[in-house]
Amino acid sequence: MNPLRFNQVRPLDLIAVGRLCIDLNANETNRPMEETRTFTKYVGGSPANIAIGSARLGQKTGFIGKVSDDQMGRFITNYLEKNSIDTTGVKIDRTGAVTGLAFTEIKSPVDCSILMYRDNVADLKLHPSEVDEEYIKQSKALLISGTALAKSPSREAVFVALEYAMKHGLTVFFDLDYRPYTWTDEAETAVYYNLAAEKCDVIIGTREEFDMMEKLLHIEEADDQNTASRWFSYRAELVVIKHGGAGSIAYTKDGASHRSGIFRTNVLKTFGAGDSYASAFIYGLMNGQDVSEAMKMGSASASIVISRHSCSDAMPSLEELLNHMDTAIYELA
Amino acid sequence: MNPLRFNQVRPLDLIAVGRLCIDLNANETNRPMEETRTFTKYVGGSPANIAIGSARLGQKTGFIGKVSDDQMGRFITNYLEKNSIDTTGVKIDRTGAVTGLAFTEIKSPVDCSILMYRDNVADLKLHPSEVDEEYIKQSKALLISGTALAKSPSREAVFVALEYAMKHGLTVFFDLDYRPYTWTDEAETAVYYNLAAEKCDVIIGTREEFDMMEKLLHIEEADDQNTASRWFSYRAELVVIKHGGAGSIAYTKDGASHRSGIFRTNVLKTFGAGDSYASAFIYGLMNGQDVSEAMKMGSASASIVISRHSCSDAMPSLEELLNHMDTAIYELA
Amino acid sequence: MNPLRFNQVRPLDLIAVGRLCIDLNANETNRPMEETRTFTKYVGGSPANIAIGSARLGQKTGFIGKVSDDQMGRFITNYLEKNSIDTTGVKIDRTGAVTGLAFTEIKSPVDCSILMYRDNVADLKLHPSEVDEEYIKQSKALLISGTALAKSPSREAVFVALEYAMKHGLTVFFDLDYRPYTWTDEAETAVYYNLAAEKCDVIIGTREEFDMMEKLLHIEEADDQNTASRWFSYRAELVVIKHGGAGSIAYTKDGASHRSGIFRTNVLKTFGAGDSYASAFIYGLMNGQDVSEAMKMGSASASIVISRHSCSDAMPSLEELLNHMDTAIYELA
Amino acid sequence: MNPLRFNQVRPLDLIAVGRLCIDLNANETNRPMEETRTFTKYVGGSPANIAIGSARLGQKTGFIGKVSDDQMGRFITNYLEKNSIDTTGVKIDRTGAVTGLAFTEIKSPVDCSILMYRDNVADLKLHPSEVDEEYIKQSKALLISGTALAKSPSREAVFVALEYAMKHGLTVFFDLDYRPYTWTDEAETAVYYNLAAEKCDVIIGTREEFDMMEKLLHIEEADDQNTASRWFSYRAELVVIKHGGAGSIAYTKDGASHRSGIFRTNVLKTFGAGDSYASAFIYGLMNGQDVSEAMKMGSASASIVISRHSCSDAMPSLEELLNHMDTAIYELA
Repeated sequence: MNPLRFNQVRPLDLIAVGRLCIDLNANETNRPMEETRTFTKYVGGSPANIAIGSARLGQKTGFIGKVSDDQMGRFITNYLEKNSIDTTGVKIDRTGAVTGLAFTEIKSPVDCSILMYRDNVADLKLHPSEVDEEYIKQSKALLISGTALAKSPSREAVFVALEYAMKHGLTVFFDLDYRPYTWTDEAETAVYYNLAAEKCDVIIGTREEFDMMEKLLHIEEADDQNTASRWFSYRAELVVIKHGGAGSIAYTKDGASHRSGIFRTNVLKTFGAGDSYASAFIYGLMNGQDVSEAMKMGSASASIVISRHSCSDAMPSLEELLNHMDTAIYELA
Repeated sequence: MNPLRFNQVRPLDLIAVGRLCIDLNANETNRPMEETRTFTKYVGGSPANIAIGSARLGQKTGFIGKVSDDQMGRFITNYLEKNSIDTTGVKIDRTGAVTGLAFTEIKSPVDCSILMYRDNVADLKLHPSEVDEEYIKQSKALLISGTALAKSPSREAVFVALEYAMKHGLTVFFDLDYRPYTWTDEAETAVYYNLAAEKCDVIIGTREEFDMMEKLLHIEEADDQNTASRWFSYRAELVVIKHGGAGSIAYTKDGASHRSGIFRTNVLKTFGAGDSYASAFIYGLMNGQDVSEAMKMGSASASIVISRHSCSDAMPSLEELLNHMDTAIYELA
Repeated sequence: MNPLRFNQVRPLDLIAVGRLCIDLNANETNRPMEETRTFTKYVGGSPANIAIGSARLGQKTGFIGKVSDDQMGRFITNYLEKNSIDTTGVKIDRTGAVTGLAFTEIKSPVDCSILMYRDNVADLKLHPSEVDEEYIKQSKALLISGTALAKSPSREAVFVALEYAMKHGLTVFFDLDYRPYTWTDEAETAVYYNLAAEKCDVIIGTREEFDMMEKLLHIEEADDQNTASRWFSYRAELVVIKHGGAGSIAYTKDGASHRSGIFRTNVLKTFGAGDSYASAFIYGLMNGQDVSEAMKMGSASASIVISRHSCSDAMPSLEELLNHMDTAIYELA
Repeated sequence: MNPLRFNQVRPLDLIAVGRLCIDLNANETNRPMEETRTFTKYVGGSPANIAIGSARLGQKTGFIGKVSDDQMGRFITNYLEKNSIDTTGVKIDRTGAVTGLAFTEIKSPVDCSILMYRDNVADLKLHPSEVDEEYIKQSKALLISGTALAKSPSREAVFVALEYAMKHGLTVFFDLDYRPYTWTDEAETAVYYNLAAEKCDVIIGTREEFDMMEKLLHIEEADDQNTASRWFSYRAELVVIKHGGAGSIAYTKDGASHRSGIFRTNVLKTFGAGDSYASAFIYGLMNGQDVSEAMKMGSASASIVISRHSCSDAMPSLEELLNHMDTAIYELA
């Protein structure tokens, strides 16, 4: 049992909104990118990864976003469709924008970095008029992700999606996913993160992300409990605050809190941990699990994905996930 | 009596936020601007005009905004100070921005137009970090105006000011004052007007402005009562909807509505009617008048200003206003 | 007699290319602009002033440029036409650009400054495709001015005009008229000034302007003679180097040099001195005067204009000019 | 024997100026890019390829350009140095620019295309002040390439390099290499191509590229001979006009013309044909070959490179080139 209620008659379970991009993962690992020679192409972007994870687990999933009118854009749409994700809401840019790229460098399992191409990207060109109210009202839940707030008109498109979601009673998940590139400065980021979070039912972020949102408003001594309470005074029912290696804590409006653990695994890279966690956590919440069990599902998915080469293509099926939960060692943080 | 409550111990009555610009009013009227030769320079911009009107009526008034680092900027700051407006919150741009200009053309009392210079203007460069929480909490009320939402970083500065105002219990007035220039499109405008209006206590706008805000959300059959009710579901206590020559209606949360009338006057031009109305209406509300009487004060101020050459410099003193209300003919619309 | 030859059968004497803008001259002089209240509107911009001066002296003059699609743009075109300037080559911007503005401040006859509005101006939007080869080949001479090189596409339009001028044997005058605003930096300026000057027959500029052009190329010990010689190695026949109060020197390819003098006058402001000089100097050169006499005509025109309120509207007729030369005192610098 | 003379005492043979980028060549060929999965990273960009080809043939080669301050930029600089290219003139961008990317798609040997990433690229940020006169005067020859003219400040940097080259008597090669992306329109391109070509000794381009340069000036009936003659009237000694499958013709100022042939080969892709041709053609001209023999060397190099996967890394050594000329079949077009 958990505090969220979903409108069960809707045909779609989850619509994700936002970034669709390409990961180019170095095939030669454990070295700096200067010395890598070949890359493998995957679909990427936090909401894309979550949508793929969600679909792999069996959720009926849709996407609202924008892709470039070229081979990269078509690769993304094809891949989503192969993963049974509805792409009705995926628009094609006609202005000559490109697909965002993320070249990954894996120097060691704990020393990974990303080289981003985010100039003139199609995903940030989604316009409010391309967000369809009729489409959104077919879904039980909406997932938004912070990067889509970074620039106009994508920023306004997210706020329109939020308005439609509230009007039609969708449960809204907000994965903060703050990446400094693209944003002008932290003050701009904090303004829009706060405005969006006011309209969300579940907020998932790191302690640092919540700090960034609170600093602007001169909120001091922000402990996790205070942070969660602030959002409960708006619409939130559930706030998850991640503390890296020290695990995550989920707060619910009734005052309860839940700590997650970690499944042991062979870590190849750290990319994709948050997205895989979110996809399985949301799956759990939407399928009647209580908060602790949903968190455990999130951790299991993360431990699978960080042992593999990609973020999106590595997402487990439900069978894989459950099998992993049965066999891997779970340790509370 | 009216539904608004003000924190009486604050040293400032009203802080206005937003546009500070220059009006260049043609001295030769009743002809197209191609045929005018000389212009007189005045301070302009809707919140500047309202602040000047407020100060003339005796309110302790402050301003948060940004001016260019040149003769135009210094003229504005000097003029505000001469009108007893506190300019602690008026920052000086250091990036080479200019002061916005509005050249007015008065072909006839009913055929007026404005030629705007709004590229690279200082007022839209106000940054969130330049909005001072300590300053805002010294005031009973805050006035925001739509134009300041048109571009970053001024847009974010307004949202930060709204957060501080709510945190410290100021009454917030929102004069919609929608001007299409500067905005990218109506969808962008509607998103930010709606987000800002959610946080305001008093919203003043034309029927067309409210329509623009509602169209985005596919709200149909928006009559005035529905419009007002929508905002009462957020924070609003008072919603004023203007119908041009047909007068204005003010709605209060308790279900009451109030119609304003018009004072007869010799109209020179229509510019400044809305700003002078707002300044005296706010004065009335902040000084214990009931809603109808405050609206009458607004109408009286408007009838004075539209008979004169400027918008800002034409604002009446309290004595002038009261005298005009005693002597001029008031007709309900 | 002078070294220039003009194709006498052409219907137009001179086509000027470039900036068309508005001067807003303070009516209250001898004070800072913060304290001025009214402005008078005049057509301005260096090539516009020269074209007006040329037309007043009786030359058949045309213009290639671009104006805003508003009252300011129409005022400019009307004014040129009233001054018998052919406006066939004046295009109308359709992108929402504005007319450049120059607010003048006259603190004293020797302390004048200008506040410029040069963002998104129509004159810099002239496109190469809007420069008509058939039009250019109807003229004996072409005048270009440095400001039109400051931004694309106006920059390319000037180079296209220069190509047509060379193809059809027009004499090309280049008034350097360097204004730092609008340009990115001095290196950019120097590159395009040098590229344009290579294609010109007469180059007129201050010592500082020539220094700026030479610094980029690390030309040292640039005395006037060396500067002139450098341009004679390209196409120039005549190079005029101005030394402010110390007068101007004109160099011709045959090795001769000529010093100009100054007519005594009551100086109101210094604006317009260069443009009026250029218009009468060009008139003299195109009407069979030798270089020294043409320079004297330039000085006479300058002494008239700096005693009056405007730059453009102050340009003398031929009768006024000749009368002034007969009556005013001429002193060699 | 050929008409070019080189200053033999200079320590460097050739300095190339301009684009340094990354090619990401699909490893899976003969299919659309939507279906490729892995890419191999190579240094790319026309002048980079020519410089690498030149260095492989044993010429002392330098480069003037700009790279991003990231792994891609460092990979490029490292690769140039490994190929014995002097990188003294390669500057590092500090503004957050990225390295340009070219994803190649090889559907068939005759159906190849490129997906370009050219937003905010470091190579176009080379500033005139970063072009060192002392460095240029150490070289016998300079190679410029059209893409570097596409945007400021790189455009101005090329013109400064040309000024220094003329001042110090370098032979200047201009490989037109016109790519429509990055340029605003054809008029802009034609203006700067013409201005640059006026200052070059050897101009190499396709018939279409010369047509584009001539169309702006309304030059009609441009046959190859007329095109070459036009440039001989400026500084050119040698003009090479390529007609695709119909081969190339080189014109010299003395009236002679030379046709090139083609070496038979197994074509993998067409990319790199022009760059490899240019590098070996220039090698031949700089090493005393007559024009026909230099063209043959160019054709030989091209036939080697188009049979291999990359453009840059495929460039032959002198031994390979001479061996190929001995063994492969050469056919006049």
